Amino acid sequence: MTYCLAIKTRDGLVMAADSRTNAGLDQVNTCRKMHFLVKKGERAFVLLTSGGLSLSQSVMTLLTRDFENNEGIAAVSSFYEAARQVGYKVREVAAEDRESLEQDGIPFNVHVILGGQIGNQDPDLYLIYPQGNPLRVTQDSPYLQIGEIKYGRPILDRGVKHDETSLEQAAKYALISLDSTMRSNMMVGPPIDLLLYRAGDLEVRCHRRLMADDPQLMAIRTVWEQELRRAARLLPPIQFGE
Amino acid sequence: MTYCLAIKTRDGLVMAADSRTNAGLDQVNTCRKMHFLVKKGERAFVLLTSGGLSLSQSVMTLLTRDFENNEGIAAVSSFYEAARQVGYKVREVAAEDRESLEQDGIPFNVHVILGGQIGNQDPDLYLIYPQGNPLRVTQDSPYLQIGEIKYGRPILDRGVKHDETSLEQAAKYALISLDSTMRSNMMVGPPIDLLLYRAGDLEVRCHRRLMADDPQLMAIRTVWEQELRRAARLLPPIQFGE
Repeated sequence: MTYCLAIKTRDGLVMAADSRTNAGLDQVNTCRKMHFLVKKGERAFVLLTSGGLSLSQSVMTLLTRDFENNEGIAAVSSFYEAARQVGYKVREVAAEDRESLEQDGIPFNVHVILGGQIGNQDPDLYLIYPQGNPLRVTQDSPYLQIGEIKYGRPILDRGVKHDETSLEQAAKYALISLDSTMRSNMMVGPPIDLLLYRAGDLEVRCHRRLMADDPQLMAIRTVWEQELRRAARLLPPIQFGE
Repeated sequence: MTYCLAIKTRDGLVMAADSRTNAGLDQVNTCRKMHFLVKKGERAFVLLTSGGLSLSQSVMTLLTRDFENNEGIAAVSSFYEAARQVGYKVREVAAEDRESLEQDGIPFNVHVILGGQIGNQDPDLYLIYPQGNPLRVTQDSPYLQIGEIKYGRPILDRGVKHDETSLEQAAKYALISLDSTMRSNMMVGPPIDLLLYRAGDLEVRCHRRLMADDPQLMAIRTVWEQELRRAARLLPPIQFGE
């Protein structure tokens, strides 16, 4: 299982991913799901992946090979084209593996979130489906999720507004969303990769990898639970008209 | 889709259910999923149902017929036996319908939560699976959910403790859990049935049916969102070590 999310605010992007990967219930490993492809000062891409690890690795291998040859997303002139390029690689891997997987009842299930920036264009954010088609984030729903998405969604729905939420606040919401998911599904687990991308960075400047016992993560969790209970006490009582 | 939940605290039970039912995406109706079977002063049962409406209706019809004849859960001497009786009715309906449903690829998917009290025994709470086997609530995990359970779970995990949470607070957590789910999945919808059962009641005293525009529900939602945003502001900042 996996949980990755990305938020777009006025000032930039927040992206976050867990690191647990499993084959069945008893073969659990740690694996990085946040990947960087950067030409400093020119373009920066951050990719989050979910689905079969073999599949997302293949997609990343093809994308990285092209990038190092100044092809693919290294060469496109718009973010939409970059999202399409990722979709083409997903389709290339599907052409290789899909039929053999489906023979054994295994779905072709790779999802990718692509965030980043090209030159002086706005930062942008897309989700690429297993069929290769891209979905762009919107102002009304300024976040994208892949993997185990339900536990961590209510806090994003209530907290995140594209025009109002600062980048630093969005990073806190992302952490809480991930922490809530880890608590409810042990197939989502630390370390947490957290990236804060400010418009114009054009490099990876603010990235942290938080272990399970990270003091900041524990402090945030403690304060959050205290404040939730306080908030619940402050709610007006329900009248049953006895 | 459906979302029902029930919480057991030291002082009694809180039970809650949405009221949306659908056949496919375009045939949406309102239907009550909270049912009462009560002999005032002697025993009180509250049932929450999810799954195909035809199936849960059949289960309730069989249970109600027995109850009115002073049989089934009207006659058992322990809550465990009551949960078993519900399971027998689920199996009776399965024997009627399962094969025909599965011929058309439709799963036999009825789930029931049974709460209440018999005489001066402690109030109790069980989940009955589609196979008829009962699961009892525990002190470590003092709530049960059926239907669309993921969106509304983190707030229960963080807020509800069997020995610490008052019945009134548990009712607020139940409402927030339901409200968060309605917001994320439009197949879960109002009115909300909310029951607060205090140990020893042996009747339905505190029941409310909250419509979408209920002033109390709207007040609770508004305060909750304000306080969540306040709580997020209070979280310690994340250091990226720039």
